[in-house]
Amino acid sequence: MKKALLLSILACGLCWGQVADDSQPASTNIVGQEYPRVHSDLRVTFRLSAPDAQKVQVRLGKVYDMEKGADGVWSVTLPPQVVGFHYYYLIVDGVQVDDPASETFYGVGRESSGIEIPEQGVDYYSVNDVPHGEVRSTRYFSKITGQWRRCFVYTPPGYDANRKARYPVLYLLPGYGEDDRGWFTQGRADLILDNLIAAKKAKPMLMVTDNQFSALKPGEQPLILRGRGPGSGGRGPGGGGPPPNFGNYGATFTEVMLTDLIPMIESTYRAIPRRDARAMAGLSMGGMQTFLTTLAHLDKFAYIGGFSPGLPQAKIEEIYKDPAAFNKQVKVLFIGTGTVERDANPNILRLHEALEKAGIKHVYFESPGTAHEWLTWRRDLNDFAPRLFR
Amino acid sequence: MKKALLLSILACGLCWGQVADDSQPASTNIVGQEYPRVHSDLRVTFRLSAPDAQKVQVRLGKVYDMEKGADGVWSVTLPPQVVGFHYYYLIVDGVQVDDPASETFYGVGRESSGIEIPEQGVDYYSVNDVPHGEVRSTRYFSKITGQWRRCFVYTPPGYDANRKARYPVLYLLPGYGEDDRGWFTQGRADLILDNLIAAKKAKPMLMVTDNQFSALKPGEQPLILRGRGPGSGGRGPGGGGPPPNFGNYGATFTEVMLTDLIPMIESTYRAIPRRDARAMAGLSMGGMQTFLTTLAHLDKFAYIGGFSPGLPQAKIEEIYKDPAAFNKQVKVLFIGTGTVERDANPNILRLHEALEKAGIKHVYFESPGTAHEWLTWRRDLNDFAPRLFR
Repeated sequence: MKKALLLSILACGLCWGQVADDSQPASTNIVGQEYPRVHSDLRVTFRLSAPDAQKVQVRLGKVYDMEKGADGVWSVTLPPQVVGFHYYYLIVDGVQVDDPASETFYGVGRESSGIEIPEQGVDYYSVNDVPHGEVRSTRYFSKITGQWRRCFVYTPPGYDANRKARYPVLYLLPGYGEDDRGWFTQGRADLILDNLIAAKKAKPMLMVTDNQFSALKPGEQPLILRGRGPGSGGRGPGGGGPPPNFGNYGATFTEVMLTDLIPMIESTYRAIPRRDARAMAGLSMGGMQTFLTTLAHLDKFAYIGGFSPGLPQAKIEEIYKDPAAFNKQVKVLFIGTGTVERDANPNILRLHEALEKAGIKHVYFESPGTAHEWLTWRRDLNDFAPRLFR
Repeated sequence: MKKALLLSILACGLCWGQVADDSQPASTNIVGQEYPRVHSDLRVTFRLSAPDAQKVQVRLGKVYDMEKGADGVWSVTLPPQVVGFHYYYLIVDGVQVDDPASETFYGVGRESSGIEIPEQGVDYYSVNDVPHGEVRSTRYFSKITGQWRRCFVYTPPGYDANRKARYPVLYLLPGYGEDDRGWFTQGRADLILDNLIAAKKAKPMLMVTDNQFSALKPGEQPLILRGRGPGSGGRGPGGGGPPPNFGNYGATFTEVMLTDLIPMIESTYRAIPRRDARAMAGLSMGGMQTFLTTLAHLDKFAYIGGFSPGLPQAKIEEIYKDPAAFNKQVKVLFIGTGTVERDANPNILRLHEALEKAGIKHVYFESPGTAHEWLTWRRDLNDFAPRLFR
């Protein structure tokens, strides 16, 4: 009994010691907000003042009940979390809402709270003491859609100063429910390239993000995946709901890219207008879009990346028709998956095995311990970008 | 009686006709979201599915109760709203949260829902068929804070093509609880300049936004205005709570601007490095910062703008010391206010009267029908920018 009490006191002391001593506000918090806090063992404590609510929960992957204190403040400490970036929500009497203490990130078809769980000893997506490029928000008129569109263009360090240099271009797409902002706000793609270029691991390049889901001709409706759209509470592809219907997905954006975006980039920026200076990659449905666009236009692209990609089977079959020709034409075919998502759905692993069997040169990349999530895709980009334009 | 009944039927018929026929999803909604909807008479209908909630309200200036339908969907139609951009929130069982259907905007010290109420016949902040500049996200190292900082740089149309042109610079600051993003996401400053430049009403210029609140030396704490910080539920300066304590506000950012930001801009961009090519303006506490910085360094700035500014009285007194010298040195001193905020607190009007009396040349601008809010500041910028660099 005495021993149990002592242990209990020690445990409690340790617990409070950790809260007081080694937990830190998440880097994704609004400035000045103390919660959520990440502990050194990667447990996370959430808080919300809600004296009048009947039930408050937090959804971070799973749903956890919060407990109400005498002061009307609800709180819970979650077990250690996987490193990287995760969307999360609070659930107040059944309504899934953002945590007022968090920055928001457009993902899952809505603005979502997000939390960065720090990865010890890893700084390839941090703001380091290296030269930094710019991320430019650029408007261009699309003849295909008849509307002004926005894209983001990363220009590498020294772009403005080195007036004679011309650069290859990586076109990079987000997944369903995300947009052209995601690769920078969630993906930290600019920092990944800054750090790779500073270490001379990647060639200086332009990187363009766009939003394939907003590429709509007059009368075309935006793609809403059944059970996965805004308000569905789903976590995007990989979440619940009936199987998706991709319909005509990809066709209009391919036209926009070839007719509007690439010509704009190559006339506005000092881009090298050659197929061996063009790469395209995307995550999830952005990977599907990448296959649809590049495999139909191999005369325009020499580098292809699918990061946890959706697989448009009919288009992918074309790869196998003439392996020797494909190997000669495509300088890098890269496919990646997180091991956690691989264990749930090994379709990328199966593609790797089929490509291997058919003698198609490619890179198969696995991100250890991660699911269908941004750390998988940061790692994909960090492995893919150094292989480009060699 | 008969007449009253007839009027009532007509009014109701009109009302329902409008709901069905002429309401539109707000332009600030997440793509694909039908609610909130703005009616042609500027009433606004909000909806939220919350079957388990006891009470749901919407706060848009005032707080309005929503009514629960049999399907668990709560809704309310608000009376006609003032045109322009407004922050708003849903209140679910007492917790003020963002509407999952809305884009979010960093303001009031948190990510907030926002709704754009369209202004008929006004397109100076719309995406028009004109040449568009770029908005560049740029990192720079601050010797004053010892940290990397971010700012945004608007480069006017043709900046990259006209390699020999050099440009004057407008430094533009946000208010309390906002940051360097606000002037673009809420203020549409890039579109205002695109349109003014296309109409040859404003000279092509660079425009730089930064975040004075994050300029902290090691050990300095961020400014949290009592009763107005994150979670206070206030609407920023002008809201409730005890009087603010501005303390040492402004001093560190002035150092950052003079030591780090301006030298970076003038060495990285093709800026004209002269006082008559430098303007500084800001809204609310950004206006206060502008007075603190420019009035202490009139050798560095020739154009000064305070948009609903906070007034640092001691610093402003210096203007009156030598009106003739001030009139000679300062090319434009601009102060603006919304008539609704003026009626609540006429401090800017009083400043105008005092300047007038002292013979200080200045522009006094009133935004009709608006409060301490973004439409006031869009109008300020639209009036101020054409006066610059003449």
